[in-house]
Parts: sequence; C-alpha cells; structure tokens
Amino acid sequence: ALEKNGCNDLVIIGGVSRPDFKNIRVDVGALKALPFLLSLRKGGDDHVLSRVVRFFEQRGYRVHGAGDVLPELLMPEGTLTQRAPSADDETDMALAFKVVRALGQLDIGQAAVVASGRVLAVEAAEGTDAMLDRCAELKRQGRSYGTASGVLVKAPKPGQEERVDMPTIGPETIVRAAEAGLSGIAVAAQHVLIAECKRTIDTANERKVFLYGTPWAEQEPGNAGETGNKPDA
Amino acid sequence: ALEKNGCNDLVIIGGVSRPDFKNIRVDVGALKALPFLLSLRKGGDDHVLSRVVRFFEQRGYRVHGAGDVLPELLMPEGTLTQRAPSADDETDMALAFKVVRALGQLDIGQAAVVASGRVLAVEAAEGTDAMLDRCAELKRQGRSYGTASGVLVKAPKPGQEERVDMPTIGPETIVRAAEAGLSGIAVAAQHVLIAECKRTIDTANERKVFLYGTPWAEQEPGNAGETGNKPDA
Repeated sequence: ALEKNGCNDLVIIGGVSRPDFKNIRVDVGALKALPFLLSLRKGGDDHVLSRVVRFFEQRGYRVHGAGDVLPELLMPEGTLTQRAPSADDETDMALAFKVVRALGQLDIGQAAVVASGRVLAVEAAEGTDAMLDRCAELKRQGRSYGTASGVLVKAPKPGQEERVDMPTIGPETIVRAAEAGLSGIAVAAQHVLIAECKRTIDTANERKVFLYGTPWAEQEPGNAGETGNKPDA
Repeated sequence: ALEKNGCNDLVIIGGVSRPDFKNIRVDVGALKALPFLLSLRKGGDDHVLSRVVRFFEQRGYRVHGAGDVLPELLMPEGTLTQRAPSADDETDMALAFKVVRALGQLDIGQAAVVASGRVLAVEAAEGTDAMLDRCAELKRQGRSYGTASGVLVKAPKPGQEERVDMPTIGPETIVRAAEAGLSGIAVAAQHVLIAECKRTIDTANERKVFLYGTPWAEQEPGNAGETGNKPDA
C-alpha cells in the first residue's frame, strides 16, 4: 500500500504490538514478508523493533522518529510542574533509574516504580499502564506500606531503536501515577515523548504530581545513573 | 509473648508482610520495639527481613530456616515431573535465570517469566502469584504472541536471608503457571521450598508442566547463570 502512494518516508508513532499470527490478512505483500514476520516471534521487543525498521529501510524507505519531526514532543530537562521532587523522591529516583538501566541492558522494559527505597514494580511485557494499575492495587491492599510517595521512572533501553519505540508519557500516565499514590514521574530528558504536552502538565498540576526530566547520557551507563539524577534546584 | 513461654528457637515460615502501622497493637513490647518497627518502613524486602532476624538474634533467640528443620522441603536437582524441559525451554530458562540474578542484585524480586526469548514478566512487590496472573492475562489478550511455552524461574536474591524469606512454590504456583500457558517451572535447587511436595508434583503432571531444579551456586553470580542451567538430561 505504501508503494502505490509514492510514500518514501515513514514516521512510526504509537505502541507497536507484535503481529498476531491468527489475524494476519494474507495478501501478496504479506506472503513475501512471511519469513520476516515469523522471525518476529522470538526475542525481546527491542530486537523485534530494530528489525521492523531494517525491513523498511532495506526496501528504500526512510524511517524517522517522532522526535526528529516534532522535537517539541521530547521531554526537556528539569521540573515542568508546580511540585518538584523532594530529597526523598530524589533518592527513589536514583534507585529507579538504576533499576531501569539494569532492565534495559537485558531488553526487559523501560519503567520501574520505587517508593521509600523499595522497588514496587518493574515493567516487562505488560506496559507502563498495567504496571501503574498494579501499584494502585498494592496501595489499596496496604502493601505499599502507607507511604504517600513513590516515583515512576521511564527511560529508553540502551541502544534502543528510538525511532519506533520511544518511551512515551501522557495525561493517562499522570492519572494512573496519581491513583497509585506516587509523588511524581521522572523520565530521561530528550529520550521520552510527552503526548499532549499541555494537558499532561495541567493534569500533573491538578493531581499534584511532579514531572521531571533527568539529564540522560546513554553512553555512560555506569555512572550517569548516579550523577545524572539531581534536579538543578 | 515468646519470653513468657520459654521459647528460644524460632522457625519463621510463610510470607512476611511489612508491618501495617495502622494496626499495630501497642503493648509494652511493641513500644520498646518501636524505633525498630519504624526502621522497617524503608528499603528493599531483603534488607527488612535481615533486620527482623537480627532483631530476634540480638534478643537471644536462635532463628532457623524451614530448610534446616525440614530439609525434605527443599527443591532437589533435576526434573521431578514426567515432562522435562525442551531445548527451547532451556534457552528461556537461561535468560530467566540471568534476569532473576540481575533482579536479585538490586533486591527487587525472586522470579521472572521468559517465553520464546522475551521477558514477559518480572516480579517486584506484587509477588509470584500476581505475576503469573498477569502472564495469563497477556496470553488472553494475545500479547504473549501465540507461543504455548514459557518458563517461570525462581531463585533467591544474592545474600538473601533464606531463613525467613526462602522462595517457595506449591500446587497453586503450578496451577497459575499452567493458566499462563507456561511449559514449566525451574528453580534454584536447595534454595527454594516446595510446599506440599507430592501434591505439587501430581498437579504438575496433571497439568503437563515441568518442574526442574537447577544447580545453583550463589557465590558465582557471574558465570553460574551460563553453566548452571543445563538439565542433566
């Protein structure tokens, strides 16, 4: 379908699900692509998405990231909200970034929640929304042990194909984080997309949740977690 | 209450929840222990449990692990079921053990699920049962992408206080793993408890889920993951 319409540039936005092999429509293009589609059944998400990009590039398309086309969608550095991270939040953020880096190295997920020094939840295939709902459930059960705090951290995996799978937050993320009783959200600046930026910030202010962009140096996975998490305060 | 009854030895069995500060009964003993109880509000689970053990030891109690008292509860090496891990399962097991070791080093959790090379779920504060229910949900949504496989791996965290927080599996674990469509469960031999051993194995055979004890060398976190996961076949 892309060929017929003379399209040569692709911007891939939004979540990418693995193909569901029960529902694939078999047309000629799909038959030609079948060995490729079958190869997507194995491996971590990042592995799969890089291959999707390569698949299109090998066929002559240029693949752009949403951030290349609309840089104003990228999370800036610093605090975007009235509420800023407290010293306790910073401690939780530092641990959560350490966890997310460890997850990323194993191509597991892009997000984690830490509250009072304890890792409440870690994202794998279920995605950030389901992870936050789980934290809200832990809170309801009294298993987040009464702290009215906690930080969601999101960052890309090392070497992640950011053109197709950039971590994203939006108003829904804020609402779910608030339901889970978190004090805020910290993400890797310039490496996370904010959907509906104004509404996201307004929602965060209403819900008294902070939104913080942490300087992010992908090339120094060893120490950037320690040095890169301080608000400029 | 322990003092009055001349009890000097403790065996702590079962899940340990953090104290819920709303419901603690204030008696003299609790008042004396208050600074200690408050200190339990921070840090990872392992950190907390080690302090619980130290608390009792400092008061002259001997704390025993369930495995010391009833060694027959400990998972042995090798396959316990009619079904044994396939070559694909072994690959998933190796990755899952690598993930669990990485989690353990950060005091996050004791379990992970890997299917076809992809990390489906990682355990943090929610526990293994909730994690398996999540995998069943991913399967229902078609997001485990149609593979009728996957392995649950459970192992202790490095330096974990095994006397109070030994990872445990039982018939319920088997049922939930089967619901999630997993082919089996692999755990660190001698470092995981099996509750109701016979019923657990019978349930696994009924559900055609394998149960495998992987040789486990806690002192070599670097390479034991690679060398220690082969079934003796």
